[in-house]
Amino acid sequence: MRIILCGFGVVGQSLVKLFESRSDELYSKYGLKPRVVGVFDSKGSTIDPSGLNFKKLVDTKKKFGTVKNYASIKNSMSGVEMLKNVEADVLIETTASNYKDAEPGMTHITTAMKRGMHVISVNKGPLALAFPSLLELATYNQVMLKFSGTVGGGTPILDYAKNSLSGERITSFAGILNGTTNYILTNMGTGISYEDALKDAKDKGYVEADESLDLDGLDAAAKLVILANWILGIKVTLPDINCTGIRKVTLDDIKKAEKNNCSIKLIASSDKELVVGPKEIPNDDPLCVNGTLNAIAFTSEHSGTQTIIGKGAGGTETASSILRDLLDIRQEIARD
Amino acid sequence: MRIILCGFGVVGQSLVKLFESRSDELYSKYGLKPRVVGVFDSKGSTIDPSGLNFKKLVDTKKKFGTVKNYASIKNSMSGVEMLKNVEADVLIETTASNYKDAEPGMTHITTAMKRGMHVISVNKGPLALAFPSLLELATYNQVMLKFSGTVGGGTPILDYAKNSLSGERITSFAGILNGTTNYILTNMGTGISYEDALKDAKDKGYVEADESLDLDGLDAAAKLVILANWILGIKVTLPDINCTGIRKVTLDDIKKAEKNNCSIKLIASSDKELVVGPKEIPNDDPLCVNGTLNAIAFTSEHSGTQTIIGKGAGGTETASSILRDLLDIRQEIARD
Repeated sequence: MRIILCGFGVVGQSLVKLFESRSDELYSKYGLKPRVVGVFDSKGSTIDPSGLNFKKLVDTKKKFGTVKNYASIKNSMSGVEMLKNVEADVLIETTASNYKDAEPGMTHITTAMKRGMHVISVNKGPLALAFPSLLELATYNQVMLKFSGTVGGGTPILDYAKNSLSGERITSFAGILNGTTNYILTNMGTGISYEDALKDAKDKGYVEADESLDLDGLDAAAKLVILANWILGIKVTLPDINCTGIRKVTLDDIKKAEKNNCSIKLIASSDKELVVGPKEIPNDDPLCVNGTLNAIAFTSEHSGTQTIIGKGAGGTETASSILRDLLDIRQEIARD
Repeated sequence: MRIILCGFGVVGQSLVKLFESRSDELYSKYGLKPRVVGVFDSKGSTIDPSGLNFKKLVDTKKKFGTVKNYASIKNSMSGVEMLKNVEADVLIETTASNYKDAEPGMTHITTAMKRGMHVISVNKGPLALAFPSLLELATYNQVMLKFSGTVGGGTPILDYAKNSLSGERITSFAGILNGTTNYILTNMGTGISYEDALKDAKDKGYVEADESLDLDGLDAAAKLVILANWILGIKVTLPDINCTGIRKVTLDDIKKAEKNNCSIKLIASSDKELVVGPKEIPNDDPLCVNGTLNAIAFTSEHSGTQTIIGKGAGGTETASSILRDLLDIRQEIARD
């Protein structure tokens, strides 16, 4: 399977390492031979139709901070140019999420689909701003659009709701979908001020470069858009979400919650409307998880409420979700 | 799809009600038209090759305590005789679990498979005592053996581990797999004695007729056998489990755990060996759920630890898992 990889940060590198370390097993067990024919990062790109060497890619990135130096001839092709000129079966889109215009991810994805490539995106921007139309574009071009890694990182939340609960109707859900804000709120629960808890989260590298994505609830809202479209079939985009972040949560609020045996969590939910905001959750509710954990509770018609808890982020975890999407695509193609 | 239903207790009746209430949707959405051609309960049976009426089945059972009175001619065919003489595509086995010889479920299942019927079992007995050989028999006879409802009731734990985490290797798991003992231990956590907590659980109808199945950990051990075989590929049966129940847990043990911010839970785990026994679990561990809830934490190679929490039992919940198995079988048959 020929792959173009747009973005080569932590997730992209983890993925390539996963390909390297599991290559024998992927071929013998699933018939998957991932061949990365092009990689694009913010500083340049590199191409080899016969497949780039996984180890050399990672080493080059480590040494030069870009894949541009992979070969002696330095390639300055952009992601879009690569997608237009290099033959491939799948685009894996891992550039940073951007909720203003979703670029460059949006153009990567639409260009790839128009050229008949399947797309795996862990970039939430394009999905948050244009989920319904991207899905239509995929159907129109008869390609698959996969995005398991966008919600829950390595925890297969989307697949669980869609496949493990097949034959069942999910009526609503509520979840902690952003690990950074959960970490901050959890620490505030021990009496630390918002400012100190935020500083600690920054020191640990948990906060996005644009801190607003975490603190104002945008990241959680983007995930809510994806869940609402995919699980409930509601055609919404980011502006439809009623979104409040955690900046105004005070230690007093948290103490008040404690008196009710509750904790304040940033909850994304789908009850009557789609909302992201701080909410009191009973401490003995399975949803009330601490630290950087993510959790989501699905309420279904016949199977009651079911909660899934896992790490919501992490390079290897997200890479493992891309691999699952790739195996799904491999299987679907083989079936045709 | 022609179905023989062995056992017509809470689960069997919930299933038939589910067929009744969702019949239009099951046909239009999944192409499934469930036709129950025979039902067997402990007092008798009833047969109609053109399909029994769902409502009448439930009404008859309610009125006479058996389906035998469904038609004017009272049928005394046993389950095995029915399976030998009535043409059907699927056996749904819901008789009570028995961990001594697994009968009558064992003979129902083997007879059905030998006749080329697919089998859905929510009866844990046959699987606990003979999982490896039953799976072999299914392969030999080219039929499907499904058992989603045996672990987690309506919570699709087995499917999650097998399918949602496909491409991933689960290295170990630990879970609270029995709601009754969890209810008793949770109540003891509030200072109530074992005896009083047990009495309360009995009053609420949570305890099996043979209380040993819950209290001595047999039910949890049976589920552990199924998980170990299905998820880890270890060929074990019930006698291989190192199993201790909750009868010897004292209020002192629980108080001691509390001092460590822990609760005592009956944990079924697969670390180095397969064990069921009371164990201290940190209160902020996602696994540490209260009341009758079930929870299981899977640790995988690349996606970290993931916990699923849900109701472990209930008629409608278990019936919904049977329906999912039936839809899987329908889909597999359509694919051939």
